[in-house]
Amino acid sequence: MNVLVRGKVRHFRTVEFDPAGNAVVLVEQRLLPHRFHRIRTPSHRETASAIRDMVVRGAGAIGATAAYGLAQGARDFRGNGLRAFARHLDEVQSILAAARPTAVDPVNALREVRKALSKGRTVAEQQDLALEAAQRFADRNVEECRAIGRVGAHLLRDGMTVLTHCNAGWLAFVDIGTATAPMYQAQAEGRDFLVLCDETRPRCQGATLTAWELSQQGVRHAVIADNAAGALMQQGRVGLVIVGTDRVLGQTGHVVNKIGTYTKAVLAHRHGVPFYVAAPWSTLDWTTRDWRSIPIEERSQDEVTGAWGVSPGGRFRHIRIANPGSPALNPGFDVTPPELVTGIITPTGIVKPSELRRIRHGSVRA
Amino acid sequence: MNVLVRGKVRHFRTVEFDPAGNAVVLVEQRLLPHRFHRIRTPSHRETASAIRDMVVRGAGAIGATAAYGLAQGARDFRGNGLRAFARHLDEVQSILAAARPTAVDPVNALREVRKALSKGRTVAEQQDLALEAAQRFADRNVEECRAIGRVGAHLLRDGMTVLTHCNAGWLAFVDIGTATAPMYQAQAEGRDFLVLCDETRPRCQGATLTAWELSQQGVRHAVIADNAAGALMQQGRVGLVIVGTDRVLGQTGHVVNKIGTYTKAVLAHRHGVPFYVAAPWSTLDWTTRDWRSIPIEERSQDEVTGAWGVSPGGRFRHIRIANPGSPALNPGFDVTPPELVTGIITPTGIVKPSELRRIRHGSVRA
Repeated sequence: MNVLVRGKVRHFRTVEFDPAGNAVVLVEQRLLPHRFHRIRTPSHRETASAIRDMVVRGAGAIGATAAYGLAQGARDFRGNGLRAFARHLDEVQSILAAARPTAVDPVNALREVRKALSKGRTVAEQQDLALEAAQRFADRNVEECRAIGRVGAHLLRDGMTVLTHCNAGWLAFVDIGTATAPMYQAQAEGRDFLVLCDETRPRCQGATLTAWELSQQGVRHAVIADNAAGALMQQGRVGLVIVGTDRVLGQTGHVVNKIGTYTKAVLAHRHGVPFYVAAPWSTLDWTTRDWRSIPIEERSQDEVTGAWGVSPGGRFRHIRIANPGSPALNPGFDVTPPELVTGIITPTGIVKPSELRRIRHGSVRA
Repeated sequence: MNVLVRGKVRHFRTVEFDPAGNAVVLVEQRLLPHRFHRIRTPSHRETASAIRDMVVRGAGAIGATAAYGLAQGARDFRGNGLRAFARHLDEVQSILAAARPTAVDPVNALREVRKALSKGRTVAEQQDLALEAAQRFADRNVEECRAIGRVGAHLLRDGMTVLTHCNAGWLAFVDIGTATAPMYQAQAEGRDFLVLCDETRPRCQGATLTAWELSQQGVRHAVIADNAAGALMQQGRVGLVIVGTDRVLGQTGHVVNKIGTYTKAVLAHRHGVPFYVAAPWSTLDWTTRDWRSIPIEERSQDEVTGAWGVSPGGRFRHIRIANPGSPALNPGFDVTPPELVTGIITPTGIVKPSELRRIRHGSVRA
């Protein structure tokens, strides 16, 4: 998407590849929104570190980064013979997969690249096929997001206020994003609307990443405390909610997403505000049948007891907010049941959560 | 309540008066939870500044501070004659009332002290009556809170987890607090329970003041992000909610309280979790009939875009969290309708919001 760099609008993807330098090029997300900076990871080990250290985060973005990392590692092979090459690839793949062990996207991306390159008959052919496959993975991610935008854009009407939670924007994908895609498309179609960004404590991805993204694209927006959405809905000041998702249960329609999503769905339901979930195909989980069996990550207490930001002098700082010594509970995700979800915005159409099963069986081409 | 000061447990009220030094003694709440410090305001002007600058905050606490401030000003009179004394009192009273112009408690407290002292026949008598009246006001505040504790304590059962929002603790009153009163009483009765403190963005009174208070009293507690309560209720991990209130409409039972309270009430209702509001008599508003006519204060954007805390070196700092340049909306309060409130814990009994009117008419002595 567009970024204003030293007074000029430039276009970047969150994850790119430089074939000449054999480097992955990433937006350094840990510095956002306070500084925009891109880094080059010149080897697959550094690419893995960038995933592990959250230079890049978001399901689609880390999937594409891992795919490029495998192509990068393949192209760095200096040995002889397909067998040695395969051993080298095993090592590269395991390093990249271990960078974020609970994420499913890198695993799938790596498997896809590995499968594609296996069709090559020489090391050189396999190296070329690896890069092509990684590129295809990234392009498909962009195309899916763009399709979600085309499918969902009509939901945003002129003068509407739409609420979103956390960051399911282009920074979390290769480009465009999911929850943000209908917004960017509606903007391109000339409609004017206001986006409310839940700040999304404890990590504040809404106040930092989503607000930054929207401001770069010139989308009118305002940040709110997570506490404020209820009052704003009660006053009739929210017309629509669109959020992303980490996982949708295809069998039941339950939606796993950042902590606080469920609360917004309950409030939207009470106030008759349509609640949509933007979901690329990769987030559909066809296996899990009982939402209660989904493990909810309990994250570090430090996220709740403190915050990151910049002091007036411009230095990045972590401060402690909470009473020293008081413990914190920090569930990272919650589960929204299907009865609270108006529709799932997929790349091929909007469906009710209960209809997801029919998509799989091919009877819905929405 | 008890505070651990240099290894020793000491007992303080939030607001005290030193007759010998003619000074008001206040807990400096802006330094909490990171430092416990009490300050003496040696004149009514400095007492007014302490109210204005939020050294002391919370309805009951600023009411008592204003009452003591008027007695303090009265006792500082060095002129002659009741007429000159009355002019002096007018000035003191207007300075104290102007310190927080939207708050109703100081106005009522000042009126009460003024009325009481008017019965004196000499300046000296009026000075004595002023201090007695201020003392009575403070003592009554403590007694009301203690009564709320006795009335509500049975709601907390052994092993229960109770959620609270913002700070309606002893720091907001002269002692004991309202939402915290049943907790302190249940603890005194030997029951063990866990208090979840919503951090209460944007000002984080839950993570700072409530967590500090509870830790000083040895009440088991944990801080959670405001986003987490929904998931915890869904998992059956919350058995009770008790909050304070800024204003309860006696005619309809609508409850005005810190932003985010309404959201918790909606969630509690969905999950069948009892939701109680602790309300001293001073918060009952018998005049307003339409909750929509209650002005909701829109507070500074800076509260949402940043946070206060201490850096690892121990320095107090304000940091900017949100994207620079992104605006914020910051409604300070919300309104919870009576159908979401299980009961109002008053000093004389627990009543349904719809029964408040009967209290006024004397037919309920709960």
